[in-house]
Amino acid sequence: MSTAALLTDMYEYTMVDAALRDGTAHRQCVFEVFTRHLPSGRRYGVVAGLGRILEYIKNFKPSDEDLAFLRDNHIVSTDTINWLENYHFSGTIRAYREGEMFFANSPVLQVEGTFAECTLLETVILSVLNYDCAIASAASRITSAAGSRPCADMGGRRAHEEAAISASRSAVVGGFVSTANLAAAKRYGIPCIGTAAHAFTLVHDSERDAFESQVQALGTGTTLLTDTYNVEEAIRTAVEVAGSELGGIRIDSGDLASMAQKARHQLDALGAKNTKITVTNDLDEYAIAALATAPVDSYGVGTRLVTGSGHPTTSMVYKLVEREGADGHMHPVSKKSFGKSTDGWRKRGLRVYEYGLAQGELVLAGPADKINDWAASQSEYEEVKDLSIIAIDHGTIDESLMTREALFAARDYHNEALRELPVNALSLSDGEPAIPTEVVTLN
Amino acid sequence: MSTAALLTDMYEYTMVDAALRDGTAHRQCVFEVFTRHLPSGRRYGVVAGLGRILEYIKNFKPSDEDLAFLRDNHIVSTDTINWLENYHFSGTIRAYREGEMFFANSPVLQVEGTFAECTLLETVILSVLNYDCAIASAASRITSAAGSRPCADMGGRRAHEEAAISASRSAVVGGFVSTANLAAAKRYGIPCIGTAAHAFTLVHDSERDAFESQVQALGTGTTLLTDTYNVEEAIRTAVEVAGSELGGIRIDSGDLASMAQKARHQLDALGAKNTKITVTNDLDEYAIAALATAPVDSYGVGTRLVTGSGHPTTSMVYKLVEREGADGHMHPVSKKSFGKSTDGWRKRGLRVYEYGLAQGELVLAGPADKINDWAASQSEYEEVKDLSIIAIDHGTIDESLMTREALFAARDYHNEALRELPVNALSLSDGEPAIPTEVVTLN
Repeated sequence: MSTAALLTDMYEYTMVDAALRDGTAHRQCVFEVFTRHLPSGRRYGVVAGLGRILEYIKNFKPSDEDLAFLRDNHIVSTDTINWLENYHFSGTIRAYREGEMFFANSPVLQVEGTFAECTLLETVILSVLNYDCAIASAASRITSAAGSRPCADMGGRRAHEEAAISASRSAVVGGFVSTANLAAAKRYGIPCIGTAAHAFTLVHDSERDAFESQVQALGTGTTLLTDTYNVEEAIRTAVEVAGSELGGIRIDSGDLASMAQKARHQLDALGAKNTKITVTNDLDEYAIAALATAPVDSYGVGTRLVTGSGHPTTSMVYKLVEREGADGHMHPVSKKSFGKSTDGWRKRGLRVYEYGLAQGELVLAGPADKINDWAASQSEYEEVKDLSIIAIDHGTIDESLMTREALFAARDYHNEALRELPVNALSLSDGEPAIPTEVVTLN
Repeated sequence: MSTAALLTDMYEYTMVDAALRDGTAHRQCVFEVFTRHLPSGRRYGVVAGLGRILEYIKNFKPSDEDLAFLRDNHIVSTDTINWLENYHFSGTIRAYREGEMFFANSPVLQVEGTFAECTLLETVILSVLNYDCAIASAASRITSAAGSRPCADMGGRRAHEEAAISASRSAVVGGFVSTANLAAAKRYGIPCIGTAAHAFTLVHDSERDAFESQVQALGTGTTLLTDTYNVEEAIRTAVEVAGSELGGIRIDSGDLASMAQKARHQLDALGAKNTKITVTNDLDEYAIAALATAPVDSYGVGTRLVTGSGHPTTSMVYKLVEREGADGHMHPVSKKSFGKSTDGWRKRGLRVYEYGLAQGELVLAGPADKINDWAASQSEYEEVKDLSIIAIDHGTIDESLMTREALFAARDYHNEALRELPVNALSLSDGEPAIPTEVVTLN
């Protein structure tokens, strides 16, 4: 059986093995996921992947096959195998919502539990967040640049085949409306779209034959690919075949702005005033911004979406910030590594608003009771928002966060949160984060 | 049941649906995978992923659940569902070996069969090749820069969790010796390695406690992480705890060259002359080249490996180049799209050598019989190598290409093929491809 238990680095198991022997495995711990910096020049990042993480944690318990692998390869001792047979994450996870913005040092996800149960989740949590946030962050910039024109994910072929499915999901968080990827459509209920490939035209004896076949199969509402040979001829043939009710045409090469403009004039002259023009061809936020004045109706985005538009990972790390000591109390811990030091104590991310406009990210650090007291005392101030939700409460997963509805709600949440940021957040040029982050230690 | 049948873009199914109605679905076709250009400045690319593609093709037949999805969402007609129920790829796939170099226009993979059976494989073949080749290409540069020092994949956490497993595999093709990722170790039999995280030191009351625990669990041959607080103190403690037989130390921050040098002096002075030094921290081929003179024994490589060291995808495309016409004969086909035109006829990639040194890539294009005649007539010349092998022969998969042995054989093949390239192939600076490619049409 396939579980998530081996989506781990070996050292997680060997650390647990050693810690079970010496007793520290049972110490209460708080681990946090954050990034030390946004990708160079980016104004904000977008959280995605929480629903997927919860699926993995739900299915983390090692199978007999997993345990046999760990035993036969002498990765852990028999005592640890026995402990793993009863593995169940009984801790608590607090996380930024999917669709929420994050910045450097935002406590995107916090895992509280015993050292052993938290340690095993490091790799799978980081893998999901590092990829999914990279894609959602790129998607957000792309859909911002597209304005009211819908964006469709067509990137499956340019990413690892499973990453592609997650990319479709993260693209929705960042504002995409549809995907070409069937596995993503099935798994997440994302609306599925498609046109045709050049091969479909080429396998036929003529472009007209291909268009006739496609219209016969899919109706006049279909989108015909018009750049296999000559775009002008193709459009003429397309309207002859489908009539002026032709749904759309796709252009996949050349100078898209002037080709779209010419196509629009030609379509209008042929009476196909409602025929949509969709363009594809290595589009990203910059290319789409440059097409703003061209008569384009929708964008298909591939490579640049699924590779995070230049930033394919988010540099999220998973760090121990607080743990139980021999005295039974929680203590802050931090490493001093040069350039990679960490701050002790658990954190809480809040966003401060003025007239509904975000002014900054406030990261509180401190003992749990002090943070809770502060948060309670501030509840009367409407203009401070707690950015995190409890996704797992003492082992009980909030399964509503794993649904299709949660995915589309994340997109709505993201759209709203983006409108609350200063307008420079929407700038595509390199610059400072949209809002400053301040870390305040309460103790 | 999980099959590969939905690792497809929707248009592949709708094209098949239309082509089944009009009869072109049964036309014999040749599709080819190639890239129009290497990533900017790269001297060569490395093929990886063929074994994974064969696994997918073996498991491509849609399950009842897949068929229900296609039917319920009206993606294809009932006739097409009936056709899909009996899907079996009965065609032939010729491909560059895993570990082989490729250049712009190298016919990396060629799929021959009916239009319908070949069309459905487009996305899954491209997804695998685009990702796996990107990682193997980066891995090759990284291991070249590392020379005789072994490289371990530690990138799982910085990539999508399933991509991470494929990255470990592709890293082996490119010369890596081990991985931290347990799922990859289990699936592909890759040697697994690990040290400890900073959290392990932090959860203990002291660094000494942590080191004692790790040595107790894993023996003195283990590798201790020494940069949580102060490297010099940590090394002193490490040797006190483990003795001079300590297996290794890991440094994960700071100026790695001078820290390694200092650590080596300190270890030697403490009598731990055989204790290895492994370094990690956002390493790539450039950082590793800069460490050549530092006393480092091995490298752990993460982010930059799994993101293709700046080039996370390979821009491979899947194009129809030849198909049966109404006359029953094969005809070359090509699209004219501006900047993305293709050349008709099937291709065959050959490498030409002189004194055992590769001089160029010769890509023959033409009808099957002419290519076969040419290849046969050239067999007397030892200095021309046919770069492709038959991976699927009329539906029969060469399952030896899917084994663990094939993976490690690919690494050996790659090492040899790299030695046969002009030495400028090993240059890390941007430049021209290591050898020129010439396309010759035989007709």
